[in-house]
Amino acid sequence: MSAPASARVVALCGGVGGAKLALGLYRVLGPDALTVIVNTGDDFEHLGLHVSPDLDTVLYTLAGRADRERGWGRADESWNFMSALAELGGEDWFRLGDRDLALHVLRTRWLRQGKPLSGFMAEAARRLGVRALILPMSDDPVRTMIDTAGGVLPFQRYFVECRCEPAVRGIFFEGATMARAAGEAIAALHSPQTEAIVICPSNPYLSIDPILALSDLHTALQAAPAPIVAVSPIIGGQAVKGPTAKIMAELGIEASSAAIAAHYDGLMDGLLIDENDSTDAPTIDLAVEVAPTLMLDLADREALARRVLGFARRLATSKPTQRRAIA
Amino acid sequence: MSAPASARVVALCGGVGGAKLALGLYRVLGPDALTVIVNTGDDFEHLGLHVSPDLDTVLYTLAGRADRERGWGRADESWNFMSALAELGGEDWFRLGDRDLALHVLRTRWLRQGKPLSGFMAEAARRLGVRALILPMSDDPVRTMIDTAGGVLPFQRYFVECRCEPAVRGIFFEGATMARAAGEAIAALHSPQTEAIVICPSNPYLSIDPILALSDLHTALQAAPAPIVAVSPIIGGQAVKGPTAKIMAELGIEASSAAIAAHYDGLMDGLLIDENDSTDAPTIDLAVEVAPTLMLDLADREALARRVLGFARRLATSKPTQRRAIA
Repeated sequence: MSAPASARVVALCGGVGGAKLALGLYRVLGPDALTVIVNTGDDFEHLGLHVSPDLDTVLYTLAGRADRERGWGRADESWNFMSALAELGGEDWFRLGDRDLALHVLRTRWLRQGKPLSGFMAEAARRLGVRALILPMSDDPVRTMIDTAGGVLPFQRYFVECRCEPAVRGIFFEGATMARAAGEAIAALHSPQTEAIVICPSNPYLSIDPILALSDLHTALQAAPAPIVAVSPIIGGQAVKGPTAKIMAELGIEASSAAIAAHYDGLMDGLLIDENDSTDAPTIDLAVEVAPTLMLDLADREALARRVLGFARRLATSKPTQRRAIA
Repeated sequence: MSAPASARVVALCGGVGGAKLALGLYRVLGPDALTVIVNTGDDFEHLGLHVSPDLDTVLYTLAGRADRERGWGRADESWNFMSALAELGGEDWFRLGDRDLALHVLRTRWLRQGKPLSGFMAEAARRLGVRALILPMSDDPVRTMIDTAGGVLPFQRYFVECRCEPAVRGIFFEGATMARAAGEAIAALHSPQTEAIVICPSNPYLSIDPILALSDLHTALQAAPAPIVAVSPIIGGQAVKGPTAKIMAELGIEASSAAIAAHYDGLMDGLLIDENDSTDAPTIDLAVEVAPTLMLDLADREALARRVLGFARRLATSKPTQRRAIA
């Protein structure tokens, strides 16, 4: 499955929060119009299986198979594997559902055969009837590592096993220097048919930065002809879910949309911030759109997607922005 | 876990039928008295996971976790992994239950770390509270291959996918020449503390022959000081379950206990046959015990175990048999 000729929007995202907007975009745009470049810095080998948490969240979300209550994994999930595993003394700090396991088992075999992760995700998406291109940011391994007071932790150890409790001193992306971005990701960013590039409201430090750490992808973003719009994950000085605000505090950064703007400085043409943070707007030296960003239901996701696309469309017709002037 | 000093009985077996008698022996003998040497010729890699059907049947049976209705796999099993797998286009001809998967996933990781299968089974048995030594016949790979009119099939393709339908022309055990038997199996066979060696009523061609194909184990059996008793899997010219009688017909062998006696000729001291086949007894040039061998419930399993042990005890006190004269 190659990038469809009609692909019009590229989204960059991590897991849960970003996937919500990706779903909104997918529903608003219709089939064969969306390419999602997904963080794989959270990927890890667990029990000998290759687990790709963000890719799977995006896949399940777009396929309508994500669990809405839990916020991760599949709907109608059962946990008999986990209980048998615990009985046998296996590591049970990372929960793998019975249905979810099918994806991990098939992917692990695929990768052991020397085939690329991107090919597996394309096939899985096809099987689940998803007509968006879900791309791992890279087919090469990149691993997000968290430097904490208690030492360096691989992402899932920090995120799941330690529940984000250790204070973060720094974050780095093992392998990012050597990794090449997925070819289809670069092609979609360069494509004149791409009308908008959306940085979803995922955690900038944990979910978007690993993608930006790929130098060829970073370069392609800077040179991309389409407007780049980011959606701030901050609502009223808080992150909706996950440790974004906590990490910002630990890194000495104020949890504000202005700080998000500074973080993505030079990479985007516009920032969409929540209506609760509208007072941040004047402090941001960039095109700003103010809109409700909390996505509780499907209608919220679609409404935000429409706002983002409208914002990007307006930016495309306005004068060149600072980013494009630089690029 | 090494062979306990008090080990008194060694059983050779395959899956379902053999495991029933192994359970009877385990219950009659009590903890730390039984060593079961299990066929691994049926082992295979499926979906990248190492599956050991016979070992797992014995483990689940002795642990009281086997499904009695289905005849294989775990009790209280669910099949959500399989349904998700099918949805993703994965191979679903071999069914893996959600609970059962835990054993395969943990074992696969263990083996990939270069550790022996025997060590994994000892650990799994300990975790499930089984106080018998469940030994793979070998830590080296041996693969049962079925030569059929339609070509050579790996065992599980023949047994499960093709439902034993292709006519069998021959059976061979890939890797058996190079494989070494599990050290603890050889030690148990040689041990003067072993009071009886029981060949369970498993399929002689598919389940016991792979074990006997290991030359060091075959030699150890011939030299074993304890009496060797086989239980015929034939009841009234039929096998209780599985393709034994069909295969015998295809190989031009009459499905009778006399044929079983001929098959194990020179390897055993006595054969226990079903009461429905008592007319075979005079034609067998060997000590024969006639008893009900159909094991429908736990009481049947224990009763047969007692008959087998009593038979062996009598053989031990009688004059040396032909086998021991040869050895």
